[in-house]
Amino acid sequence: MQAVMTAEEMNDWLSEVFPQIKGQFVVHNLDGVNTVMRMVISDQHLRPGGTVSGPTMFTLADVAAYVATMAVIGREALTVTTNCSMDFMRKPESGKDLIAEARLLKVGKTLSVTNVLIFSEGGSEPVARANMTYAIPPKKA
Amino acid sequence: MQAVMTAEEMNDWLSEVFPQIKGQFVVHNLDGVNTVMRMVISDQHLRPGGTVSGPTMFTLADVAAYVATMAVIGREALTVTTNCSMDFMRKPESGKDLIAEARLLKVGKTLSVTNVLIFSEGGSEPVARANMTYAIPPKKA
Amino acid sequence: MQAVMTAEEMNDWLSEVFPQIKGQFVVHNLDGVNTVMRMVISDQHLRPGGTVSGPTMFTLADVAAYVATMAVIGREALTVTTNCSMDFMRKPESGKDLIAEARLLKVGKTLSVTNVLIFSEGGSEPVARANMTYAIPPKKA
Amino acid sequence: MQAVMTAEEMNDWLSEVFPQIKGQFVVHNLDGVNTVMRMVISDQHLRPGGTVSGPTMFTLADVAAYVATMAVIGREALTVTTNCSMDFMRKPESGKDLIAEARLLKVGKTLSVTNVLIFSEGGSEPVARANMTYAIPPKKA
Repeated sequence: MQAVMTAEEMNDWLSEVFPQIKGQFVVHNLDGVNTVMRMVISDQHLRPGGTVSGPTMFTLADVAAYVATMAVIGREALTVTTNCSMDFMRKPESGKDLIAEARLLKVGKTLSVTNVLIFSEGGSEPVARANMTYAIPPKKA
Repeated sequence: MQAVMTAEEMNDWLSEVFPQIKGQFVVHNLDGVNTVMRMVISDQHLRPGGTVSGPTMFTLADVAAYVATMAVIGREALTVTTNCSMDFMRKPESGKDLIAEARLLKVGKTLSVTNVLIFSEGGSEPVARANMTYAIPPKKA
Repeated sequence: MQAVMTAEEMNDWLSEVFPQIKGQFVVHNLDGVNTVMRMVISDQHLRPGGTVSGPTMFTLADVAAYVATMAVIGREALTVTTNCSMDFMRKPESGKDLIAEARLLKVGKTLSVTNVLIFSEGGSEPVARANMTYAIPPKKA
Repeated sequence: MQAVMTAEEMNDWLSEVFPQIKGQFVVHNLDGVNTVMRMVISDQHLRPGGTVSGPTMFTLADVAAYVATMAVIGREALTVTTNCSMDFMRKPESGKDLIAEARLLKVGKTLSVTNVLIFSEGGSEPVARANMTYAIPPKKA
C-alpha cells in the first residue's frame, strides 16, 4: 500500500473537511501503512478527576484511522466509520497531548481496517488501543 | 438487579458531574435493567454530509451505559469505561435527536457490561449498536 | 425483515453445509428478526476447571448469527464472518447445553449485523454476549 | 514486562493444561511483549469452500493471547478470556498453517490486553486481527 498524499497535504485536507476541529489534530508522519499524529488536549477533553475522556480518545482513534485510509485512497470525505472496538488501558497523563500510532491492515474495494495505539506524549506504554473499520464509497464510473 | 436512583435523580447527578454536557442528555426511564435516554443533537454533532458523527454516537452510548450502571450501583463518578465496541449501521436522520436504549447485562464487583441500541427519534431501526464495559472502583472499607 | 425459511428447513440446511457439526446445533425458533437455538455441549467443549471454552461460545455465536442472516437472505453457504466482538460474563454451568438468542439488527446489500446473548439452559442471566458481522456475497446477475 | 518462561517451557505447559490440542500449537518465540506461534491446520479446521473457519482463527488468537499473558505472569491455568474483538480480513490460503504474532499491551493486577495478527504461513498481509482481554485471578495470600 502506497501513500498518495503527504502529511502536509493531509493537514490541509483535515482543516478543509473538518473546520470545527482545526488546530486540534496534527499529522506528523504518514506512509502507506503507518501514520503518527497528535491531538492537542485542552479542558474541553477532560472528565471528572482530570483524565482525558473516552469520547476524546475515540475521536482521535477515528481521525487517525481516517487519515491512514485517506493516505492510500485519496480525498474521500464521505468515507464513514462502520465498526470500532477500543480498550482504555491506562489513565492518560493530565496536561499532555495524545499521540496516535495507526497501522493500516487492509484497504479493500469497500472497506479499510486500521489498528491504533494511543499514548500520552512522551509515554512508552499505550493508554488505549482501537481498531476501526471504514466503509469506502464505490468509485464513480 | 434493582435501581437505587430515579430518572429524575439521575438527571440531577449528570448535570452535577458533567456540567459541560448540561442539557444535552435527558434520561426518560430507568429501572435496574433497561434505560431509555435522549441526546439533543445540534450543529456541533454533525459531520460533512449532515450526518451525526461517530464520536457523538460513541458519547451517547458511553453515557447510556454509565447511567445504566449508576442506576444499580449508585453515584460513583470515577467509574471509567474500559472497553467498547460499536457498529454504525445506518445514517441517522438529520434534524432528529438520538434515543438510546440500554440493557445492563452484568454488574459484578469490578465491572459492568451494557448493550446499547441507538435510534433516530421516531425511527424503528437502530442506527448504531454498542457494548460498553465499565470498571467499578472497589468499595471503601 | 421477513424469514424465507422455517426452523426445520434451517436445521436441514445446517446439516448439509456443516456435516462435521451435525447434531451439535438445533434451531428452535426463527422469524425475520429473532432466532433461538441450542448447542449440545459435550466433553470436547470444556476447559480446565470444567467450564465451556471461549472458542465453543464463539462458535455458537457465529452459527446463531449465520442462521439469523440466512433466515432472511436464504441459503448462501459462502457468506463469511468479517467482524465480531464478545464479552464472556459468567461461567457457564457445567453439564448444561447452551442456548443462543440472536437478534438481527441489519441486513444490507453487503453485510448483516446480529446481536447474540448466550445462556446456560434454564439460566436467566446471559453467560456471554456477542455481535457478529457477516459479509453477504453479491447477487449473481 | 519480562518473560518468566521460555518458549520450550510454554510448549510443555500447553500440552499439560490443554492435552486435547496437543500438537496443534507450537510457540516459536516469546519475550515479555511479543509472541510468535503456529497453529497446525488440518481438515477439521476448514469450512465450505476450503477456507479456515472463524472459530479456528478465534482459537488461535485466544491461545496466543493466553501464551503472551502466561509468559509474564507465569502458569495460571484458570485465567479466562473476558472480552475479544476480531476482524477477518482476507481468506487464509488453503493448505497453509496459521502464524500468530501477539503483542502484549498491558498486564495489570486483574487483567491483560493483547493485540494479535494472524497470517497464512509465508504471507505478508494479515488474514485476521484480534484483541483479547484475559482476567487474571487474584494472588493467593
